Amino acid sequence: MNLEQKASLLSGKDAWSTEPVGGTPSAVLGDGPHGVRRQAGGTDHLGIHASLPATCFPPAVAVGSSWDPAVAGRLAAAVAAEARAHGVQIVLGPGVNIKRSPLCGRNFEYYSEDPLLSGVLATAHVRALQAQGVGASVKHFAANNQETDRMRVSAEVDERTLREIYLPAFERVVEQARPATVMAAYNRLNGVYAGQHPWLLTTLLRREWGFEGVVVSDWGAVNDRVAALRAGLDLQMPGNPAADAEIVRAVRDGSLDEAVVDRSAARVRAMAERWRAGRADFDADAHHALARELAAECAVLLKNDRAVLPIGPGVGTIAVVGPFATEPRFQGGGSSRVNPTRVDVPLEEIRRLAGERTVTTDPEGADLAIVFAGLADADESEGYDRTAIELPGEQVELIRATAAAARRTVVVLSNGGVVSLEGWHDDVDAVLEGWLLGQAGGGAVADLLFGVTGPSGRLAETVPLRLQDTPAYLNFPGEQATVRYGEGVMVGYRYHETVERPVRYPFGHGLTYTAFAVGDLAVEVTGADSARAALTVANTGGRYGKHVVQLYVATQAGPVRRPARELRAFTKVALGPGESTTAAFDLDARAFAYWDVAEGRWLVAPGEYTVQIGENASVIVAEATVELAGEVLAKELTLDSSLGEWLAHPAVGPAFMDRLTAGMTEEQRAQAAEHAGMLRLVESLPMHQFLGFLPAPLPEEALAELMTLSRRGTRHRPRERRAL
Amino acid sequence: MNLEQKASLLSGKDAWSTEPVGGTPSAVLGDGPHGVRRQAGGTDHLGIHASLPATCFPPAVAVGSSWDPAVAGRLAAAVAAEARAHGVQIVLGPGVNIKRSPLCGRNFEYYSEDPLLSGVLATAHVRALQAQGVGASVKHFAANNQETDRMRVSAEVDERTLREIYLPAFERVVEQARPATVMAAYNRLNGVYAGQHPWLLTTLLRREWGFEGVVVSDWGAVNDRVAALRAGLDLQMPGNPAADAEIVRAVRDGSLDEAVVDRSAARVRAMAERWRAGRADFDADAHHALARELAAECAVLLKNDRAVLPIGPGVGTIAVVGPFATEPRFQGGGSSRVNPTRVDVPLEEIRRLAGERTVTTDPEGADLAIVFAGLADADESEGYDRTAIELPGEQVELIRATAAAARRTVVVLSNGGVVSLEGWHDDVDAVLEGWLLGQAGGGAVADLLFGVTGPSGRLAETVPLRLQDTPAYLNFPGEQATVRYGEGVMVGYRYHETVERPVRYPFGHGLTYTAFAVGDLAVEVTGADSARAALTVANTGGRYGKHVVQLYVATQAGPVRRPARELRAFTKVALGPGESTTAAFDLDARAFAYWDVAEGRWLVAPGEYTVQIGENASVIVAEATVELAGEVLAKELTLDSSLGEWLAHPAVGPAFMDRLTAGMTEEQRAQAAEHAGMLRLVESLPMHQFLGFLPAPLPEEALAELMTLSRRGTRHRPRERRAL
Repeated sequence: MNLEQKASLLSGKDAWSTEPVGGTPSAVLGDGPHGVRRQAGGTDHLGIHASLPATCFPPAVAVGSSWDPAVAGRLAAAVAAEARAHGVQIVLGPGVNIKRSPLCGRNFEYYSEDPLLSGVLATAHVRALQAQGVGASVKHFAANNQETDRMRVSAEVDERTLREIYLPAFERVVEQARPATVMAAYNRLNGVYAGQHPWLLTTLLRREWGFEGVVVSDWGAVNDRVAALRAGLDLQMPGNPAADAEIVRAVRDGSLDEAVVDRSAARVRAMAERWRAGRADFDADAHHALARELAAECAVLLKNDRAVLPIGPGVGTIAVVGPFATEPRFQGGGSSRVNPTRVDVPLEEIRRLAGERTVTTDPEGADLAIVFAGLADADESEGYDRTAIELPGEQVELIRATAAAARRTVVVLSNGGVVSLEGWHDDVDAVLEGWLLGQAGGGAVADLLFGVTGPSGRLAETVPLRLQDTPAYLNFPGEQATVRYGEGVMVGYRYHETVERPVRYPFGHGLTYTAFAVGDLAVEVTGADSARAALTVANTGGRYGKHVVQLYVATQAGPVRRPARELRAFTKVALGPGESTTAAFDLDARAFAYWDVAEGRWLVAPGEYTVQIGENASVIVAEATVELAGEVLAKELTLDSSLGEWLAHPAVGPAFMDRLTAGMTEEQRAQAAEHAGMLRLVESLPMHQFLGFLPAPLPEEALAELMTLSRRGTRHRPRERRAL
Repeated sequence: MNLEQKASLLSGKDAWSTEPVGGTPSAVLGDGPHGVRRQAGGTDHLGIHASLPATCFPPAVAVGSSWDPAVAGRLAAAVAAEARAHGVQIVLGPGVNIKRSPLCGRNFEYYSEDPLLSGVLATAHVRALQAQGVGASVKHFAANNQETDRMRVSAEVDERTLREIYLPAFERVVEQARPATVMAAYNRLNGVYAGQHPWLLTTLLRREWGFEGVVVSDWGAVNDRVAALRAGLDLQMPGNPAADAEIVRAVRDGSLDEAVVDRSAARVRAMAERWRAGRADFDADAHHALARELAAECAVLLKNDRAVLPIGPGVGTIAVVGPFATEPRFQGGGSSRVNPTRVDVPLEEIRRLAGERTVTTDPEGADLAIVFAGLADADESEGYDRTAIELPGEQVELIRATAAAARRTVVVLSNGGVVSLEGWHDDVDAVLEGWLLGQAGGGAVADLLFGVTGPSGRLAETVPLRLQDTPAYLNFPGEQATVRYGEGVMVGYRYHETVERPVRYPFGHGLTYTAFAVGDLAVEVTGADSARAALTVANTGGRYGKHVVQLYVATQAGPVRRPARELRAFTKVALGPGESTTAAFDLDARAFAYWDVAEGRWLVAPGEYTVQIGENASVIVAEATVELAGEVLAKELTLDSSLGEWLAHPAVGPAFMDRLTAGMTEEQRAQAAEHAGMLRLVESLPMHQFLGFLPAPLPEEALAELMTLSRRGTRHRPRERRAL
């Protein structure tokens, strides 16, 4: 291929496919990931043209609440089949951005506020999708946590926060599932566009994580094509012949090495050749049934007073009210919007399961009223953020009026972003948080209400009492093209648990129709920085059900502020009544590590680590503390080290104090002893400055000797912080 | 003078004086500022050697609570007299750093969490000090808000936060009081040592604010002498001949322009020549009496249930308990520590005023118990920060035991940093927050308890319920040599009021022995960005007293997140019973402005501004809203401007929409109208990208015409953000 041909591979042929050139086939990319969005007519990317019918599975907000990688995997396998039917080689997604604020308009496309939960689900999704021969595009890389000013805003995030919160889901997917592509986000990260960020796209993604696929731009995310290419962005979408020409010019004028073009062109070519599974049909009925089954795994039963659910035999009259009962809301707006093959209507599905009972739309005198409430389509979408988390006023009124009229009231919520339950929560008996459940959500909800299926979803994000209580409240969505991630690693439950701020429902919360008990927690240290935990889980209730075992680690070890606890492992177990099982977790170094910016790597500090089994992030039902040897960073002392660091060194400290008092007269020694506490005032002084304050200088040889002493037993030399 | 002589002027002769060279006199600098600390013997700066006796006036924490520039000024004039007696030409201080966290060990040396209150008091201090011929040193410049790792830690602060919170007190003092010197802090600001920060020491301090004095290093704050000199640090302290030699070498090898040396040497020389008021004596008795009078203005009566204070005629037996009743704590530790001329003992002062009453130290059966509680010397100091805000457990026990035993209980607090009143607040009848009141605090407290003087202090900082509720909780004191100011401008009451988080006592709170009413608030717009407010204040109680009128401004105008309200003016008025007066405030642009980082300057946005008169920061007793024309920033549109900005432009928006639909068919037009809401999804797209998504390109001439249209009425072109 000549230079022009290679350059033409580096942006699309049009909005959705790559250039077929020099024998390289064209690859079609299609929006996703909870269903295939393949536009039939024009290619405007604004969603104006309708797309081909495809099954709308539960969006990520719902899959997140399943806490079950099998749900993510089965969903993705089905989407892969539909992609093949529609001739799509790469389905864009999954989105693994962290829900930093409940206000983000695109939260419905993301799994969780927790990086581990996000990463595990996304890895299952990518593996299953790609196992069917369809490529994935993990997005939006990185720190794309809001829609406001998303094309320009700079997310100002320190490296520890990036490493511990915003990057781990990407890291896990890249390392464990080898996605075909990673999508570079629109926004800037610490001043540099994500699509032009050499550290992000090359140092981190390829060198550290070993990514070998294609970095594709979010649609329209490229600002300086040559800079982006140099930074590691291979494929610009949509097609842009002018940008291709820029690349050619840059090579010709010597400002761009042609090897950079060759490398990216080879990657695009390899991608187009690799992901060609061929056309296949899919069974829309089977997929709709699957969508119903998966949706039922995702809904979260938040409240169920007096066991009002499942609907029992004593309930004769059921009132079904609310706009979403007949016109369900089941997905969000924007590029992920699927044109569904069919849509379950909740009212109809309820009538179907109600049998002999009376189903009305009038709550006056009903035994049980079911209110379908939530957010309207215009309330949340890709492209803009919310500004409040309350339900619309008229829906609050509807719920309260219904609760006043009916004997018992159940609220079923449809919303992509968290809503507060303010103003009505205490008036109703049960709340089923359905999020956006996809096209079969109506059927799934009916199954859950009548107990055909038991609820097993758990919150993948905190439900706060008030927006003001959320960690990013003062720093979202930023201002004047900048957003400061001022809360650092204290995102979601990490914040609420650390500042002990009450919430409506904590991360990990969810009720079932049966009961579970955990016990016999045993934690065994298996190495300097690893452990193994095991416990028994028993279904002590009267029905089959599923329980999510949540393992958190709490520690104050190390030189950084740790969250009160962090989710480090989880599993979902299914048990019949009276059954029990053992859940075991191997906890590797990452379960205990923090990112050390001085060392530029993960580090397990020596100290105590408490393994906690949580009913949710707030309620710990079992815990055990172990001591880990970790890694002792005996710091090499220099004259720039502080007096405090010298004094704290196990070997050097006492020797230094001896030296300090060696030349003193008796009187001086007595005075020094009297004022020993004063040293605390000056312990932050670098040694070279402290020495300047001494009445008599210390011999240089003595200092050199002490510094040599400090190097003994030092396993790691401090190194310069690597630039982000 | 030759080069060596000039260089020798640029660091001290020793720890406390400048080099006398080439006819330049030596100037003596002495610690302060609530009293003169002039060491008698050695010059160790560690405080080991005792200093000459001087009056210990109330430290800044107390002066802050006076809300009275007259208090700051009278104090400083007296300190100036003592400085002259001790042969000190420059008294270091005042410290105007903002109390970012209650944990900062040096908060007792700072006035407030509010920059206006800090700046007004410091300006009065410097004016009065310098009017007596003694120079001041405003410190610690800048963003030195903690002691932990203070020699190295980098305060990471965005420019708006610096401009609105951490710099205004310095700015006011420099511009209004022309201090002899400004002291560069130890810490780094955004990665650069404050003492080597060209933007801080030259661009801002000299070019913007017009500072003409000497920049002196905090003692030992210089890391790279040549870099510091180049950045604008004139005088290094203490003396450092090696550093002087470095300067000489740098000039000789051509790496430093000798003009830089000349400039700084001239400044040091001018300082030494200017501040030579000559020796004078002072009257220690008169100064002690003044210290007592001033201290009484500073204590804050937090609580006074059933008017238990002042001690009435019905109280026959008074119990005085607590360690500080006999060994008062009245100042903090570190470089500001004064060797007092004498010390009032509270117990003795109370006995003196008790007259016929019985004063015991046994609360069993007392009519009234007075508990002297607070923090011990070791609990807070320069050099380290606190880690908790509770009183020591044994003191809480003492208070509770006393309250259980006595009929009524008053707690008098002595503490430099805020303490929570957790665990005992509701058990006692009255709380008098005395802070650290200086050597005559014991007498002042007695005066207040018996009503010889009425309390008139107001909180200069919030008293929180819990440490976890404070804005810097998660970001203090930082980690691994970095501290992120994640809360931005939301410091102190700005945070609590904005997030609606309850506190124990709000900023501005304070009770008196009489009652005041405000009314007739009138606010008149006097210009595009200014207004005048007037109101009446009446003493409606039965005693003479002083009232602090607090004027706040609340607005949501402009493109940045504004605090719920901000203190913009205040005055303290003294009224006899039945008297009333008018308080009037001219509010200039700064009372309404925010710092616009895009424009790089202060800006008053057009919009509504509510002028609020607060009993404190939480309780508003009168308000009036005015509309200010402000400054309309009609943005010049470019192809990099977002679609949203184009659509929002009053002239261009409609014209652009016309253009957009001009070439459409009827069918397209109908479809576009139907999908108009979709534009919201893409309004953050830069115009050049939006254009790429259009089915047919817009003519270049049309776009150029629209951009020209946008320039009409544009008063200010956007300019590059100036580097900090």
